[in-house]
Amino acid sequence: MPDKVYKKVELVGASNVSIEKAIEAAYEKASKSIHNLRWFEVQEVRGNFDGGKPLYQVTLKAGFRLDGE
Amino acid sequence: MPDKVYKKVELVGASNVSIEKAIEAAYEKASKSIHNLRWFEVQEVRGNFDGGKPLYQVTLKAGFRLDGE
Amino acid sequence: MPDKVYKKVELVGASNVSIEKAIEAAYEKASKSIHNLRWFEVQEVRGNFDGGKPLYQVTLKAGFRLDGE
Amino acid sequence: MPDKVYKKVELVGASNVSIEKAIEAAYEKASKSIHNLRWFEVQEVRGNFDGGKPLYQVTLKAGFRLDGE
Amino acid sequence: MPDKVYKKVELVGASNVSIEKAIEAAYEKASKSIHNLRWFEVQEVRGNFDGGKPLYQVTLKAGFRLDGE
Amino acid sequence: MPDKVYKKVELVGASNVSIEKAIEAAYEKASKSIHNLRWFEVQEVRGNFDGGKPLYQVTLKAGFRLDGE
Amino acid sequence: MPDKVYKKVELVGASNVSIEKAIEAAYEKASKSIHNLRWFEVQEVRGNFDGGKPLYQVTLKAGFRLDGE
Amino acid sequence: MPDKVYKKVELVGASNVSIEKAIEAAYEKASKSIHNLRWFEVQEVRGNFDGGKPLYQVTLKAGFRLDGE
Amino acid sequence: MPDKVYKKVELVGASNVSIEKAIEAAYEKASKSIHNLRWFEVQEVRGNFDGGKPLYQVTLKAGFRLDGE
Amino acid sequence: MPDKVYKKVELVGASNVSIEKAIEAAYEKASKSIHNLRWFEVQEVRGNFDGGKPLYQVTLKAGFRLDGE
Amino acid sequence: MPDKVYKKVELVGASNVSIEKAIEAAYEKASKSIHNLRWFEVQEVRGNFDGGKPLYQVTLKAGFRLDGE
Amino acid sequence: MPDKVYKKVELVGASNVSIEKAIEAAYEKASKSIHNLRWFEVQEVRGNFDGGKPLYQVTLKAGFRLDGE
Repeated sequence: MPDKVYKKVELVGASNVSIEKAIEAAYEKASKSIHNLRWFEVQEVRGNFDGGKPLYQVTLKAGFRLDGE
Repeated sequence: MPDKVYKKVELVGASNVSIEKAIEAAYEKASKSIHNLRWFEVQEVRGNFDGGKPLYQVTLKAGFRLDGE
Repeated sequence: MPDKVYKKVELVGASNVSIEKAIEAAYEKASKSIHNLRWFEVQEVRGNFDGGKPLYQVTLKAGFRLDGE
Repeated sequence: MPDKVYKKVELVGASNVSIEKAIEAAYEKASKSIHNLRWFEVQEVRGNFDGGKPLYQVTLKAGFRLDGE
Repeated sequence: MPDKVYKKVELVGASNVSIEKAIEAAYEKASKSIHNLRWFEVQEVRGNFDGGKPLYQVTLKAGFRLDGE
Repeated sequence: MPDKVYKKVELVGASNVSIEKAIEAAYEKASKSIHNLRWFEVQEVRGNFDGGKPLYQVTLKAGFRLDGE
Repeated sequence: MPDKVYKKVELVGASNVSIEKAIEAAYEKASKSIHNLRWFEVQEVRGNFDGGKPLYQVTLKAGFRLDGE
Repeated sequence: MPDKVYKKVELVGASNVSIEKAIEAAYEKASKSIHNLRWFEVQEVRGNFDGGKPLYQVTLKAGFRLDGE
Repeated sequence: MPDKVYKKVELVGASNVSIEKAIEAAYEKASKSIHNLRWFEVQEVRGNFDGGKPLYQVTLKAGFRLDGE
Repeated sequence: MPDKVYKKVELVGASNVSIEKAIEAAYEKASKSIHNLRWFEVQEVRGNFDGGKPLYQVTLKAGFRLDGE
Repeated sequence: MPDKVYKKVELVGASNVSIEKAIEAAYEKASKSIHNLRWFEVQEVRGNFDGGKPLYQVTLKAGFRLDGE
Repeated sequence: MPDKVYKKVELVGASNVSIEKAIEAAYEKASKSIHNLRWFEVQEVRGNFDGGKPLYQVTLKAGFRLDGE
């Protein structure tokens, strides 16, 4: 890995089911334009109660290898 | 929203099922006395293993609009 | 002050003019029900751009002396 | 505890004797209106030197079970 | 919002007038290439005194909905 | 409890199902050598997307009473 | 700049007008004895409501080049 | 010290007398199995009010030189 | 206070008796050269066990009004 | 600089030689696509011991002026 | 990795040459008793100037897979 | 050490060679006016890429015993 460089982007996924589904939603959406997402780090879990039930909003950083390596 | 003011309270919900259930427990209990809970921010996830299984204790801040606005 | 005890509450004020106006809005609203607000500590400055212009949302803790002292 | 929900409030107690006395002062004052304070978490220790001697001001969060459970 | 995913970018705006003007400068510049900036979170306020007067440099995270949703 | 002393250890559990399963995995593994794990505090939730799906890696501190008390 | 060394001091400026005016007050006062203040980093914004209106108290670190370089 | 390596462990001591007594309790207990505890760093002060009086629970990291050096 | 500016310095006091004595030691020493110390903020409590007993080392920030105001 | 706006990106560089080499690796890789990288802020230093020797992985934020100014 | 559990220990290595040498010293010492150290996370870099030259003391967390997996 | 009091100052050293050289630069400069610098704590590592190569800027706190003890 010495000659590898990665970039992290910050994403917010949402789900009214679970924290895990919010993470997966962010991954699925972002992986359409970023092809080699490798890892994630949860930054914040918040949400709202608009429908009388939690909507989970999870902020995560997602890392991927920079192209052309 | 310029003329709206919100207050946040800090709650701890518990569940032996999941983190999400602990959040919902806090919401259900608190919404009996606070009528317009709008959003939440998870502060801490901890718990104990008393029955050989995790009991999730989730601290969250919950925000609501101050009455009379 | 040795025999004085204070409580802090967490408020969110908003303004489309400035951070200071958001703090004042929180103070004016909260001081209708809490009569001796003494100090504040800014916790977070955030907002949205819904109208193409920032709406400032300022979270602050406000401290007041507990009644009956 | 699965069906228990707690609330935390933030208090500031003061004492010119010790940090512990400041915590106890906050507890005694708050327990007059909140009947089931269960635990505390020290957030900050500060104070002033007005009389040439420290006056300790301790900010703590105190947790209690929500009524009616 | 369950099926919405957001991205946050980190920007630094500057102004020799005020913190608010620095936030607006970042918004105006960034909104030329990002069409749906929705919210911001102030991360840091710093600056320099080069001309004997503060130049405010405000770091903020700005969130927007990922295209194609 | 005045004469009780506890120790905390830091563990990382993993699961491709959920955050809760990762916590349980850490508990089950650690409880084979530590017999009185009492509580836990989640420190970090991260993971990777190696199989196109999140693998949750949860860092937690787990506390137990020191032997011989 | 390789052979330059800087020092930071921590100041608190106050203003009943704005956060910016509090920063300027700290700068003006400190620049009477420190001649080459170069940059600042806001650490905390707090204040009191003594006159029914916020008095802003801004803690900042201010950096300057050490003399004799 | 260049060839010395230290390890830190995290302990929780308790006392219904004072924060200092809780630190000493942790030290006395841990020093039975770790023979060269050298320094400590307080991480958290919390406790409960079970008997109507604070029981102090102090989390500290304690450092010692690794054996065989 | 609008026209007042304060400076904070960071001190470490020590005592083998208590945390409070360490704060007082820092105050007494520093007040010999700084005449108007007004407040303090505890930053860190640590120490060592050299004599088999804790020596408390308390880092605090101490604030004072800048001269000539 | 009043009319300048910057963006920060988060990168991870790696090196089995030193922390500095990891920072340089991130800079060299990123500067191929971002032409005016101006400053960096180290966020985290971590790594692994896969070959019995540290591989340094350094996360940094790198700032650059937004194009078209 | 779903069925793998890791433990982290906190170490302090020292070197009068460089930060990297301090990390390597901690690794070499700890790997004598822990056979599968996998990764590290730098927590703090400090030191002293006793000989008129820095002695680097680096606190790191080091992770390893729990035996018996 | 019970009767010793220390002060910490915050310095920024720079080097285009390494982080260690930046720390040494701060030490050498500061030790011209402060005669008993004892220890340091790294607060931040940042820098710029002005010459296409990192210039390391390291903020550290440096502690020394107050004179006259």
